[in-house]
Amino acid sequence: MGHMAAARRRADRARQVADLLRRQIVHRHFARGPLPPEAALAHEFGASRNTVREALRLLREEGLVERCPGVGTTVAAEKYPHGLHRLLGLAETLHEHGEVTNQVRTMTLIEPPAAVSHRLGLAPGEPVVYLERLRRLNGLPLSLDLTYLVRDVGEPLFDADLEHNDIFVLLERIAGQPLGVAELTLEAVNADPHTAAVLDAPRAAALLMVERLAHLADGRPVDLEFIRFRGDRLTMRGHLSRIAEEDR
Amino acid sequence: MGHMAAARRRADRARQVADLLRRQIVHRHFARGPLPPEAALAHEFGASRNTVREALRLLREEGLVERCPGVGTTVAAEKYPHGLHRLLGLAETLHEHGEVTNQVRTMTLIEPPAAVSHRLGLAPGEPVVYLERLRRLNGLPLSLDLTYLVRDVGEPLFDADLEHNDIFVLLERIAGQPLGVAELTLEAVNADPHTAAVLDAPRAAALLMVERLAHLADGRPVDLEFIRFRGDRLTMRGHLSRIAEEDR
Repeated sequence: MGHMAAARRRADRARQVADLLRRQIVHRHFARGPLPPEAALAHEFGASRNTVREALRLLREEGLVERCPGVGTTVAAEKYPHGLHRLLGLAETLHEHGEVTNQVRTMTLIEPPAAVSHRLGLAPGEPVVYLERLRRLNGLPLSLDLTYLVRDVGEPLFDADLEHNDIFVLLERIAGQPLGVAELTLEAVNADPHTAAVLDAPRAAALLMVERLAHLADGRPVDLEFIRFRGDRLTMRGHLSRIAEEDR
Repeated sequence: MGHMAAARRRADRARQVADLLRRQIVHRHFARGPLPPEAALAHEFGASRNTVREALRLLREEGLVERCPGVGTTVAAEKYPHGLHRLLGLAETLHEHGEVTNQVRTMTLIEPPAAVSHRLGLAPGEPVVYLERLRRLNGLPLSLDLTYLVRDVGEPLFDADLEHNDIFVLLERIAGQPLGVAELTLEAVNADPHTAAVLDAPRAAALLMVERLAHLADGRPVDLEFIRFRGDRLTMRGHLSRIAEEDR
């Protein structure tokens, strides 16, 4: 086997091991403390120690594990599961994992661009509430949320405790009805330098970007959000059925 | 306003405009050819030309648009929508957008690590089929898929046309029953150098990483996949309900 083929094979093997390890780490397969030693992992994955070392290096690059001299490899930071099975606010979906706090960076009434008016079903020029929050879990930055709200449900938020509450819960209280359905687009993007700084993330860090238009139960769109989650701190989890819900 | 505050405000404004523009580009709001000129975009978004220029720079960094001298800013590459409303293979979900072809990098019977056996509900040491594919849409790399299949439905794939078929369709034919439900985990990760090279993506490009365990309709898990989508070529789209499906 040539040098190139050997390098490719090693990289391919490392990726396989890294994926299985990532899953185990994210799902808290390992007890607190260091991961098993390389030799044990090599045995478990039927891989060489070099492959395991390379897999751990890949996960270090992702910020999932870190190497502690004299201790071994430890899980660097928890990666939290965001439910993808129903429409949930951040504090709702992460309530088992700690306290969500929201730092309001901006909150103001604006005359929105046509792109926003259109999606919220508003006449051109009708004002909306624009809200920008840095959201933390247990004090660590998790997401930067840009939110456009129709005026009648958004304006009462100026007097609400936004620091300790999800918007969803507050909106439902204000509107006097539950939320209904949200349209959702998910993407992976590299953080621009300013966003990386705000989220305290590495340069060009992978972000899970969510665009979400939430409707009230009566069908009226009220809440348009652009959310940047730190990719190293959050996963989305759900189920898909081969038969679409509407065809059941 | 101090210099720092002004820079922050400019970056914040650019992010807002970039998010709205991204949405419009991904949803093909603009006709083919260059985007509207900066002055028109500035008017549309109620922003300064400097802000629009900065927003376009952010989208260039993401690989979504590019600047063509003498022409203006054009959409660099299509970003394709992957359905998140039901369990779909790649060719199924993208059939309107072109031809999916699959390059088989590896296909072999292996004795899997315990992490794989456990998820597929197999006894330790029971062999599985390991399959690795580079998947392209219209010739452009879209994803790198690592797949573990239980032997009885995986082994017949050695004789199947994997280049032109989704695994899902082939599995259903082999098993004589449809697929049922899949568990899904979504993450955003930075590409390691080797993966970036395989996907022909920039260094440390943001990838949408999907881990998916698909079951047959009878409930048996048969197909465990680790999929790395190029973040600049794919979005996931779906709906969420405030009331969980199971509570309806």
